[in-house]
Amino acid sequence: MNESGFELEMEVRDYECDLQGIVNNAIYQNYLEHCRHKFLQSAGIDFVQLHNDGIDAVVIKAEIDYKFPLRPGDVFFVRLKLGKQGNLRVIFDQQIVRKADEKLIVKARTTTVLTKNNRPLASAFLLKEFEESGFLVPEV
Amino acid sequence: MNESGFELEMEVRDYECDLQGIVNNAIYQNYLEHCRHKFLQSAGIDFVQLHNDGIDAVVIKAEIDYKFPLRPGDVFFVRLKLGKQGNLRVIFDQQIVRKADEKLIVKARTTTVLTKNNRPLASAFLLKEFEESGFLVPEV
Amino acid sequence: MNESGFELEMEVRDYECDLQGIVNNAIYQNYLEHCRHKFLQSAGIDFVQLHNDGIDAVVIKAEIDYKFPLRPGDVFFVRLKLGKQGNLRVIFDQQIVRKADEKLIVKARTTTVLTKNNRPLASAFLLKEFEESGFLVPEV
Amino acid sequence: MNESGFELEMEVRDYECDLQGIVNNAIYQNYLEHCRHKFLQSAGIDFVQLHNDGIDAVVIKAEIDYKFPLRPGDVFFVRLKLGKQGNLRVIFDQQIVRKADEKLIVKARTTTVLTKNNRPLASAFLLKEFEESGFLVPEV
Repeated sequence: MNESGFELEMEVRDYECDLQGIVNNAIYQNYLEHCRHKFLQSAGIDFVQLHNDGIDAVVIKAEIDYKFPLRPGDVFFVRLKLGKQGNLRVIFDQQIVRKADEKLIVKARTTTVLTKNNRPLASAFLLKEFEESGFLVPEV
Repeated sequence: MNESGFELEMEVRDYECDLQGIVNNAIYQNYLEHCRHKFLQSAGIDFVQLHNDGIDAVVIKAEIDYKFPLRPGDVFFVRLKLGKQGNLRVIFDQQIVRKADEKLIVKARTTTVLTKNNRPLASAFLLKEFEESGFLVPEV
Repeated sequence: MNESGFELEMEVRDYECDLQGIVNNAIYQNYLEHCRHKFLQSAGIDFVQLHNDGIDAVVIKAEIDYKFPLRPGDVFFVRLKLGKQGNLRVIFDQQIVRKADEKLIVKARTTTVLTKNNRPLASAFLLKEFEESGFLVPEV
Repeated sequence: MNESGFELEMEVRDYECDLQGIVNNAIYQNYLEHCRHKFLQSAGIDFVQLHNDGIDAVVIKAEIDYKFPLRPGDVFFVRLKLGKQGNLRVIFDQQIVRKADEKLIVKARTTTVLTKNNRPLASAFLLKEFEESGFLVPEV
């Protein structure tokens, strides 16, 4: 964790690159998801355990700006800030930044809702864990 | 092709589903990309050949609304309409719809620019192929 | 289905190709798995339903000979014959063949065992469905 | 690197797990490939640079024994030893071992040949880099 919120360091794997020689667009969603799950885990929240308890974090919207491509061997940070929207939506604002020069690669907002046995669950359930941390940003 | 524009029929493969038992969010981008490439191919445009000629269609923005999940064995349509925004941006408006009942699964807008040897290329290069087809929608 | 056993037609998707411009080695396992599941489905056996009933087909060994690479746009057949080895092992002998010229792409043998609630299950459970079909080959 | 040869530490990402709740069989090939490329990189050999120079390491055979599945969150080592077979084949013997308890997960042998502009290249080209390291095992 740092001033920018939660941060995860990752590295491009060659098999994630497509025939354009750069990371395939869909793979960035893998990176973003993995960062969200590691973030939750850092707060003691286990995505798989939640699922087994009937609680799922469901992505309802993804907005991804692709600024610059990652290439084989690139090391990068995935950064995350958490917000809420109303009582139901949990917002993950994420950036992917190349480690060597802090170049912005991807900027993404992922909107999720929580469900318990397929019914909506107030976001407070998840967010109370983060209220006193530096991760939660004001209503977005 | 039909009144809704270009249409591709696909089927969920079990390995595309994650531990929630539904298609993983990133996989829908695979479906959307495959549909775009098949659409271009239907107009005689080969994505790989373009790349080998130094011309790349670069995704700069993806906006994806996840309405309802696909499950193992589901058969679905990916539908596509094409638009432009200014002289540089090519817009792909896409929907994923479950075949059995036309249930809307995903609604997505993908914004792309063309580059030739990494410099912007006017979208007319690509769009002129589609002007007399029913695929091109008015400026978006 | 044809004289060669079960057969599934598929097509390479561009995102399945890596920076060498050919289908990535791991992707062939996706093709092989998808063919196995479609084969089971053709006999009324649903892989997901089996899993939900506590029965899993577990791959214990994969032997894959890569003869020639698939490229973007290639259409191909995945073919399958079924065998058994002792009372516990179910063997899937599979080939991937390019449609245009019947060129052999991949030859693979996948050895599986069935488990029920994580304990071994006699292969007869699965194989009895296939005994009178042309798919089952003599003991391998 | 350690007594067992080259070693890479990795961690299961949730999106790599399928609806059985365990890492999908094809994903282990991703892990094995990533380890091979990091190993080459550790010796100053860049897989992508090789490809751009017309030299490709082509997998001709993969033999994978699946001993025990990895689950979400598992941390594991991928280990590698290098061998040769005749003058053309480079053999990678690899193991995936769970970090917590050294449990053997996967045992794999990958047979590769080098090609330069699609013609066979003597394995000495690659192996001479490793001859004085502890990685190269006797003829296999």
